Amino acid sequence: MRNENLLKTALIQQRYQGSKEATVTHTTEKIAEAAEGGADLVILQELHQSEYFCQCEETRFFDYAADFEKDVEFWGRVAAEHRVVLVTSLFEERAPGLYHNTAVVFDSDGSVAGKYRKMHIPDDPGFYEKFYFTPGDPGFEPIDTSVGRLGVLVCWDQWYPEAARIMTLKGAEVLIYPTAIGWLECPTDRRDELCEKENTAEERQKMLEAWIAVQRGHAVANGVPVLTVNRVGLERDPSGQLGGIRFWGRSFAFGPQGETLAMAGEEEAILRVDLDRKATAEVRKIWPFLRDRRIDAYEELLRRYCRS
Amino acid sequence: MRNENLLKTALIQQRYQGSKEATVTHTTEKIAEAAEGGADLVILQELHQSEYFCQCEETRFFDYAADFEKDVEFWGRVAAEHRVVLVTSLFEERAPGLYHNTAVVFDSDGSVAGKYRKMHIPDDPGFYEKFYFTPGDPGFEPIDTSVGRLGVLVCWDQWYPEAARIMTLKGAEVLIYPTAIGWLECPTDRRDELCEKENTAEERQKMLEAWIAVQRGHAVANGVPVLTVNRVGLERDPSGQLGGIRFWGRSFAFGPQGETLAMAGEEEAILRVDLDRKATAEVRKIWPFLRDRRIDAYEELLRRYCRS
Repeated sequence: MRNENLLKTALIQQRYQGSKEATVTHTTEKIAEAAEGGADLVILQELHQSEYFCQCEETRFFDYAADFEKDVEFWGRVAAEHRVVLVTSLFEERAPGLYHNTAVVFDSDGSVAGKYRKMHIPDDPGFYEKFYFTPGDPGFEPIDTSVGRLGVLVCWDQWYPEAARIMTLKGAEVLIYPTAIGWLECPTDRRDELCEKENTAEERQKMLEAWIAVQRGHAVANGVPVLTVNRVGLERDPSGQLGGIRFWGRSFAFGPQGETLAMAGEEEAILRVDLDRKATAEVRKIWPFLRDRRIDAYEELLRRYCRS
Repeated sequence: MRNENLLKTALIQQRYQGSKEATVTHTTEKIAEAAEGGADLVILQELHQSEYFCQCEETRFFDYAADFEKDVEFWGRVAAEHRVVLVTSLFEERAPGLYHNTAVVFDSDGSVAGKYRKMHIPDDPGFYEKFYFTPGDPGFEPIDTSVGRLGVLVCWDQWYPEAARIMTLKGAEVLIYPTAIGWLECPTDRRDELCEKENTAEERQKMLEAWIAVQRGHAVANGVPVLTVNRVGLERDPSGQLGGIRFWGRSFAFGPQGETLAMAGEEEAILRVDLDRKATAEVRKIWPFLRDRRIDAYEELLRRYCRS
C-alpha cells in the first residue's frame, strides 16, 4: 500500500560503460530495479549517457547533442514503462553552435514535465564546460510532477546558495543535483606540481567534504531535502593531455534539517531514500528562516562585487 | 617575531558568572590570557556581559542597555590595554524605545573601528528577541581594522546565506558570528510535549549539526574562513516560565574551503585559531565561485516568496 506521506526515491550512481549503447542499457536496467523496489522518483547523474567528455575541448563531442530529441523520446518511454518520475541529464543542441547542459524531467506517464538548463557553468582543469555549454536562460524554475515540485539544478549550481534559495522561494519541495565531480588523476607519464598538490589524501578529503558541506548547508538554510547523484569510476581524458578524473561517487540525501538520510560510497549503487513529505513543514515551524529574511537589504546580491 | 601571513585569533567561550560585574571581570581575564598567548584578534560571544535575558519578555532588562556608552568606553580600554582587536556584543539603547543587538569592534588602540547592528532577529520559544531588538538598519557592512576587514554578523544571521554573501562581496576577509544558542531545558516541575520532543538526544544532535553545517556552507560557498563563538552553561529562565537554555558551546573555526580548523566542547574555552591569510586567495583560484555568479538571474532573491 502506498504511503502518501513518503516520497520514495532512488539515486542511480553509476560508471560509464565504454559506449553510449552499453551505458544506456545499464542505466535502464538500474531504473527497472529501482522501480521494482518501489521508487516513484528516479534520479540519474549528470550527462549519464556518455563519458564526461568535458575533460578536453574537442568539437567532435558536439555530435553527442545531435540526438537530443531522440534521447528525450527514449527516456520518456523508459519513464512510462516503469511508471516513475525520471530526472535525466542530457546534452542539448538548441541550434547549431548553441548547446546546453539540460536536465529533462519526465512524469510517470512518459510526458516531459519540464526541463532545466544548467545556469552556472564551470571551467577549470578537466572540467572545460564553458566550451560546450551556454549558460541556461530560463532561470531557476522548479518543475511540477505527479510526485511534487522538483527544484532540479545541475552540478556546478550546487556551490551557489542563490540557486537553492530561489528554487525554495518558488516552492520547490526538494532540491535535486545530477553531478559529475571527482579528483584529477596525475597523468601516468608525468607528475606535475599542480597534480601532485591536488592528489594528496588530505586535499582530496577537503574537496569531498567541501562539496558535501555546501549542499548540506542548502538543506539547512532552506528547510528542504537535497538529493545529489554523482558518477563513479576513473575516466581517462579522451585527448590524453590530462590524467583523467576519478569520480568520487558519494551520492547523498539530506533531510530538511540537514540530517543525513543516506550516502553512497565510491562504487556503483542504487541509493534508496524515502523522504517524509511532512518534514519540511515541521522543521520550518521551529526553524522559520523564511520568516525573517531582510529582503530590504539584499540588493547587493545582484552585484558582481561591491568594491571597485 | 610576527608572521604577517597569519592572523592569530582567540575565541572566548564562557559561562555567565551570575552578575555583570563578575562576568566582565571573568571576560577581561580571559582576554588578557588570550593576548598573552599571542592573539591579535579576540572575539566574544553574543551579549557576553549578561545572562541571555531574551528567554522572557520583561521590561526591566531594557535597563541593561542604558550603559551602552559606558560599556563601549570600558571595552575600548580593555582592547587598548591588551593591544588586541576586540569583537564585542552589546545591548544598545539608541533612543528610548529603540534598542539594538550590536556588535562593537575595537581596534588595538582602543578606538571604535565600527559597529554592526544584528539584521536578522529571531523570535522563538526561549529566544524572544523581537521584543528587545529592532532589526539593524545599516545593512551588511564589514568593519576595517588593523588586522583586516571583518565581516561581523550576529547569531541568527548565521542561518542566512544572503548575509554571508554580501559581506563577501564587500571584501570581508573573515566571517565572525558572536552567538548564544542552546537546547531548551524542560521545566523541573513539568514536562510538556514540545519540550520532550526537543530534548531527545537525537533531536539535540540534529540541531547542533544543522547549526554547524549551515555556517560551514558559508565558508565553502564564499571561500572565506568563519569564526563562531557561542556561550556555555545552563541559564534558567528569569521568569520561571520555561525551563532554561543549556548553551551548547562548540565554538568553531572553518577555513575558506570549509575545513575544520578548531572546535570547542561544551565547557569554557579559549579557542586559539591561526588563520592563513593567503588561504582565501589560493582556494578561490581553483574554486572560483565568485567568477560564475548569475547576477542577471538573482532578482527573485529580493522577494519574500515567489508564489501567491
